[in-house]
Amino acid sequence: MNIAGIQARLAAFADERDWEQFHNPKNLAMALAAESGELLEQFQWLTADQSEQPDPSRLARVAEEMADVLFYLVRLADRLEINLQEAAADKLEVNRRKYPADRVRGDARKYDEYE
Amino acid sequence: MNIAGIQARLAAFADERDWEQFHNPKNLAMALAAESGELLEQFQWLTADQSEQPDPSRLARVAEEMADVLFYLVRLADRLEINLQEAAADKLEVNRRKYPADRVRGDARKYDEYE
Amino acid sequence: MNIAGIQARLAAFADERDWEQFHNPKNLAMALAAESGELLEQFQWLTADQSEQPDPSRLARVAEEMADVLFYLVRLADRLEINLQEAAADKLEVNRRKYPADRVRGDARKYDEYE
Amino acid sequence: MNIAGIQARLAAFADERDWEQFHNPKNLAMALAAESGELLEQFQWLTADQSEQPDPSRLARVAEEMADVLFYLVRLADRLEINLQEAAADKLEVNRRKYPADRVRGDARKYDEYE
Repeated sequence: MNIAGIQARLAAFADERDWEQFHNPKNLAMALAAESGELLEQFQWLTADQSEQPDPSRLARVAEEMADVLFYLVRLADRLEINLQEAAADKLEVNRRKYPADRVRGDARKYDEYE
Repeated sequence: MNIAGIQARLAAFADERDWEQFHNPKNLAMALAAESGELLEQFQWLTADQSEQPDPSRLARVAEEMADVLFYLVRLADRLEINLQEAAADKLEVNRRKYPADRVRGDARKYDEYE
Repeated sequence: MNIAGIQARLAAFADERDWEQFHNPKNLAMALAAESGELLEQFQWLTADQSEQPDPSRLARVAEEMADVLFYLVRLADRLEINLQEAAADKLEVNRRKYPADRVRGDARKYDEYE
Repeated sequence: MNIAGIQARLAAFADERDWEQFHNPKNLAMALAAESGELLEQFQWLTADQSEQPDPSRLARVAEEMADVLFYLVRLADRLEINLQEAAADKLEVNRRKYPADRVRGDARKYDEYE
């Protein structure tokens, strides 16, 4: 099930439930952010090291929250007629230009902090 | 470029910049939430109707922010060895059981608000 | 109970539970964002009009989530030795300069979108 | 400048700019979450230890973002006629019951993870 497949299934899922009325881009952006908050909650009291090795029940919960984030992202793309794979390819190119490997190696500062 | 393709490119991108050291799951969950906040910002003062028809410059910005959300989601999956497509298929099944179409039609209440 | 009073009580609350070890600024910023996501969730499927008049149970839940946001904000200020009231006064002054009333009246664009 | 003072100034600020039309609770909850995302961004690549000692420019930025979070929180309270100080006192009492000090000492699990 690739992105297009997920998108088609989610559209059918929303349509069967008459949920398209709630799925305007504003609401979907909110739902996406709320789900990303639930994902955050799974890691908030863990150390960085602990976050590398979540126990099985936490890992299962994390996978569920990640799926929820993906669902709202894909639904938003659908409603705005954005091709998510093209957007990803374009942004990857932007990032390549913003963060030349030889300049930013080992440095996580944001690109706009470089003079 | 499907999810696996994006994942491979992002891993190479991080590796070339020696950024894997920053990309522990805790930090990636934070970055994902921060990007979802930037996406939110694009819609916060728009009405629901306006959010359906963003002007071209806003739409381009939205597509960039959505790509950023996708990138951190895919990176997180990579670092936790979660198969995002499997997680999506599993969660879709969970949602089918939680929200039977004939019960929730036209109603956006969360499943746990149903008695 | 003003901000200083809340701050003192929360510090005692954390200390009694030996929770200061978890309350570094990074973790507190995550917890604050996670709580703001829970607040968001209360409004995500409501129209703007419905959000003005939440039913009593939702309003109670909203008040609880808002208290949680405030708590992590105040804890973060405590740990970073930031005086929240001074920070608020300073930022209000910044905003006055950024958004002159006669220039931005009725317009919600962000200041950096003004030429 | 206490919470009531901030609330009065922000209401005047919004009124002078004819911004009350944008400040419905749904939009304010979004703006609050977006600001909490900007706060998150300040800490996302820092270690927990580094987050304890941000450099002066980061600390100044953090204080600004915290003020923004506080502003939207206070505006939201204003629009929903929630007394934020009462809500804080009530929630503190709830937390005392949920997390008895002798039971949760040194343990950050959420209350609902206790059997």
